[in-house]
Amino acid sequence: MSDPTPAILDRIDADQSRALDRLMELLRIPSISTDPAHADDCDTAADWLVAELSHVGFDASKRATSGHPMVVAHGGKGDRHVLFYGHYDVQPVDPLSQWDHNPFDPRIDQTPRGPVIRARGASDDKGQLMTFVEACRHWKAETGDLPCRVTILFEGEEECGSPSLVPFLETNKEELTAEIALICDSGLYDDRVPAIITTLRGLLGEELTIKGPDRDLHSGIYGGPAINPARVLTRILGRLHDEQGRVTVPGFYDGVGEPPSQVKEGWKQLNFSTEAFLGEVGLSHPAGEVGRSGLEMLWSRPTAEINGLSSGYTGDGFKTVLPSKATAKVSFRLVGGQDPQRLRTAFRDWVIGQLPPDCHVSFQDHGAAPASAMQISNPIFSATQLALTEEWGTEAAYVGGGGSIPIAGYFQSILGMECVLTGFAKDDDAIHSPNEKYDVENFHKGVRSWARILGRIAA
Amino acid sequence: MSDPTPAILDRIDADQSRALDRLMELLRIPSISTDPAHADDCDTAADWLVAELSHVGFDASKRATSGHPMVVAHGGKGDRHVLFYGHYDVQPVDPLSQWDHNPFDPRIDQTPRGPVIRARGASDDKGQLMTFVEACRHWKAETGDLPCRVTILFEGEEECGSPSLVPFLETNKEELTAEIALICDSGLYDDRVPAIITTLRGLLGEELTIKGPDRDLHSGIYGGPAINPARVLTRILGRLHDEQGRVTVPGFYDGVGEPPSQVKEGWKQLNFSTEAFLGEVGLSHPAGEVGRSGLEMLWSRPTAEINGLSSGYTGDGFKTVLPSKATAKVSFRLVGGQDPQRLRTAFRDWVIGQLPPDCHVSFQDHGAAPASAMQISNPIFSATQLALTEEWGTEAAYVGGGGSIPIAGYFQSILGMECVLTGFAKDDDAIHSPNEKYDVENFHKGVRSWARILGRIAA
Repeated sequence: MSDPTPAILDRIDADQSRALDRLMELLRIPSISTDPAHADDCDTAADWLVAELSHVGFDASKRATSGHPMVVAHGGKGDRHVLFYGHYDVQPVDPLSQWDHNPFDPRIDQTPRGPVIRARGASDDKGQLMTFVEACRHWKAETGDLPCRVTILFEGEEECGSPSLVPFLETNKEELTAEIALICDSGLYDDRVPAIITTLRGLLGEELTIKGPDRDLHSGIYGGPAINPARVLTRILGRLHDEQGRVTVPGFYDGVGEPPSQVKEGWKQLNFSTEAFLGEVGLSHPAGEVGRSGLEMLWSRPTAEINGLSSGYTGDGFKTVLPSKATAKVSFRLVGGQDPQRLRTAFRDWVIGQLPPDCHVSFQDHGAAPASAMQISNPIFSATQLALTEEWGTEAAYVGGGGSIPIAGYFQSILGMECVLTGFAKDDDAIHSPNEKYDVENFHKGVRSWARILGRIAA
Repeated sequence: MSDPTPAILDRIDADQSRALDRLMELLRIPSISTDPAHADDCDTAADWLVAELSHVGFDASKRATSGHPMVVAHGGKGDRHVLFYGHYDVQPVDPLSQWDHNPFDPRIDQTPRGPVIRARGASDDKGQLMTFVEACRHWKAETGDLPCRVTILFEGEEECGSPSLVPFLETNKEELTAEIALICDSGLYDDRVPAIITTLRGLLGEELTIKGPDRDLHSGIYGGPAINPARVLTRILGRLHDEQGRVTVPGFYDGVGEPPSQVKEGWKQLNFSTEAFLGEVGLSHPAGEVGRSGLEMLWSRPTAEINGLSSGYTGDGFKTVLPSKATAKVSFRLVGGQDPQRLRTAFRDWVIGQLPPDCHVSFQDHGAAPASAMQISNPIFSATQLALTEEWGTEAAYVGGGGSIPIAGYFQSILGMECVLTGFAKDDDAIHSPNEKYDVENFHKGVRSWARILGRIAA
C-alpha cells in the first residue's frame, strides 16, 4: 500500500476553516477548573469532546472522578499503541480588564505576524489537543482507520494540580497503558524549530497565611505594639532569595545536579538569546542565579516564585488598617532529584522558624510533582523527530522544559511509559495571561505534524 | 439665673431612646468617602445633618467642595465662642463577610457588657458627633438658646485624607475661627477614665506599585530569568524595619524627640497595661521598638505599617503566574517634628534605591499631616476636664493619642486655634473593622458630658 500521508495532508489543508470552527466551539466553553463556579462548564467541555471523538470514530466516554471528569477514547489497531494526552481545562482569566475581548468569545485576529485564534485556552491546551483530534479525523477519512492503536486521555484538572489523575491512572492502569505517551502541551523552540522536550521541571505549590491580631485593627490605635502580619510576611518572603539569587530554604539544592555535558553542548547549539527572550516581555536583565545562563535558569535550575500576595485593604483609596492576616501563594519549580514532599516540609519549617511571637501560620497544599527526564531510546522518539523535521523544514531539537507537566512523571511512574512531549505553542502565546492566542498557522501545521507522526510511527 | 445643667441632664435622660433613633437614621446612610460609588451617600448624609441641625435651631448649610460637602452651622451668642468638629463619612466595610449583619442596618445588640449600637460609623464618628448635637438640642429646649456661641463644622472626607479641608478652612477662615476647637473623634482612657488628648501622631500615606514584565507570565516558561515584582516588593518592604523594630528609611527619626519628663511621669500614673491592651485583640508581645514601653510605642514613637498588599493571583485555588506588578499601601505614624513631605521623599528614594534592573515603581500620594501638640493654658481645657470629671466620677486625664487627627494640626496652623480633643469611644469599638459598635451608655454619657462642658465653658 502506498503511503497515504500526502493525501491526508491535502485533506487537512482543504478542511482548515472547518477545523477552526470546531476549535472555536470548544473555546467557547469556559472550563476554568480551579474555580468551583465553573464545574458545570468543565463537564460540558468533556461532553463536547466525547461527542467529537465519537464522531471521528473513536469509542469515547466520559469518566467520573471525584473532581472534573476524564475523557477516554480508543481507536485503531495494530502492534504499535500510543496514548495521547491533553487537557481541556483552562486557567482563570483575571485580570479580565486587560483582555481585548471576552476570553470565551474566540476570534481570529489579524496580526503583523499572521492570523491568530484569540481566547483563553487557545494555546493551553484546547488548540493543541485539537491538532491531534483533527489528524486522526483525516486518517480515518482517507484510510478508514488509524495507522496504529490510539488511546486518548483528556484531563480536566491540569490547571488545578490534577488531584484526580493519580487515582484514575492507578484504577485504569491496564486500559491506559500503551507503548509510549504522546503529550501535546508544549511549544516550538524559537518560533520556527520544532522541539521534543526530554526534561521537565517539577512543581511544588504552597499557600501560607500568617495571622496576628484576631481582627483588623486601626493603625493609629494599635500601630507600634501590635504585630502586623503583612510586615511579617514580607520580612520572611523577602529572605527567600539571597544576594546571588539562590533560594535560602535549607536543603533546597539537595538533589540538584548539572546536566550531562553533551546535553549542555546541545543547548549551546540552539544559540538561545536570553536578551531576545526577555525582550519579548519588556525585560532585559536575567534575574535568576548569578553565573547561570538563561537556558540553565529555565531548564536545569530550580526556582521559588511568589504567585500571589494579599493582605489588608487593596481597593481604591486608602485605609489605615493594621491587617489581621496576610497571605501568599508560592511555587517552586524543581529539577533533578529534588524531593517535593521533603521541600514542602523544609519550606514550612523555614517559615515557622522565622515567626515572631503572637503570629501563627497555616499552610495549604497546592500540589507537588517531581522533575522528570526521558529515556529517548524508543524508536517513536526518532519517528516523531523525523516527522516534525519533515513538516517544519528544520531539524527538530531535543530540549529542556522550564514548565511542569506532572502527567509525564505519572505516566513514567504509574504506567511505566516514556513520554514524547511536543507541541506547537509559541513563546508569545500569552498562556496563563490576558489575550492568550494560538497562531492559525501553528494550529494547521500542528494537525499536519500529527498526521505525519502517526504515519511514521506505524511505518 | 440658676444653673440649668441638672434640668438639661434630666431632659437628656428622658429623651434617650429618641436620641438613639436619630443616630440610627444617620447610620443607615452608607457614607463611605473613599469609594467613588458612595459619593451620593455622602451628600445624603450632609443633607440629613443640615436638616437635623436646622431642627435643633442652628443656622445650618451644606457647602460644596471639590470633593464631598462640608456642613457648617452657627448658633448661640455671648463672649465665648467654640468650634465643634466631627466627620460624617465612614470607613469601607470590607471584609463584609466578617460582619454579623449589614453594616448599614444599625441594631442595638445586647452584650455581657451592656447594650451597644452596632453599625459602620457607630463610634467613628457618627455616634460621637451626635453626642454634641443632642447636647445642643437640650440646651435649646431647656433655656431657649445655647450658653455660648457655637460654630459646627462636619466634614465628609476624614477617612480619605481630607483633600478639601485645607482649602475650605483657608477660604472660610473668618467664619470658622473661634476661641478654641472641640473635636469629638477619640476615646476614653481605659474604658472608665475620660481623657483629653494633648498630643497626636501625624500620618503619611503612600501607595507603591512595582512593575516588571509587561504582562503576567507563566512561571514555568519564564521563572528564573524573568524578574518577579512580588519578590522585589517583599524584599524591599521586608527591610522596612531592622531587628530592633526601628524603621530603616534614612532620616526617619529626624525631629523625633522624647516627651517632657513630667508628661512621661503622668503616663506612668495611668498604670497602662500593655498586656491587657494587646490581650483584647489576641496578642501578648509588644511588637514595636525594643526597649520602649507600650505607651511610648503608641503615643511618642513613629511607626511604619503595611496596610495592604496585592499581587498576582489571589482567588481560590492556585495559578502559577509570575505577576507583572505588585502593590502595597504603606502608612507612617509621625511624632514630634517629623516632616511628612521630607519623609515621603526619603521613603520614595529608599524604595527606588533598592530596585533591581528592569523594575519600575510608581507612587501614589495618600495624604500627609504632621504630628501635633496642644498648649493647654486656655481655661476651656480646665473647664472641659472639670465637666468630664463630674460626669464620669473619675478625674479626666491628659493623654497622648496614637492616631492621627490631621484636622487638629490644620486648626492650629490655619485658624490659630488650640483643640480640645475628647470623646467617648472604647478600645473595643472595632472602628475601621467589622462589627464596629458604640456602647449605648457611652453615647448617653457622651451627650451628658457635652451638656456639662457647654455649661462649664459659659460659666
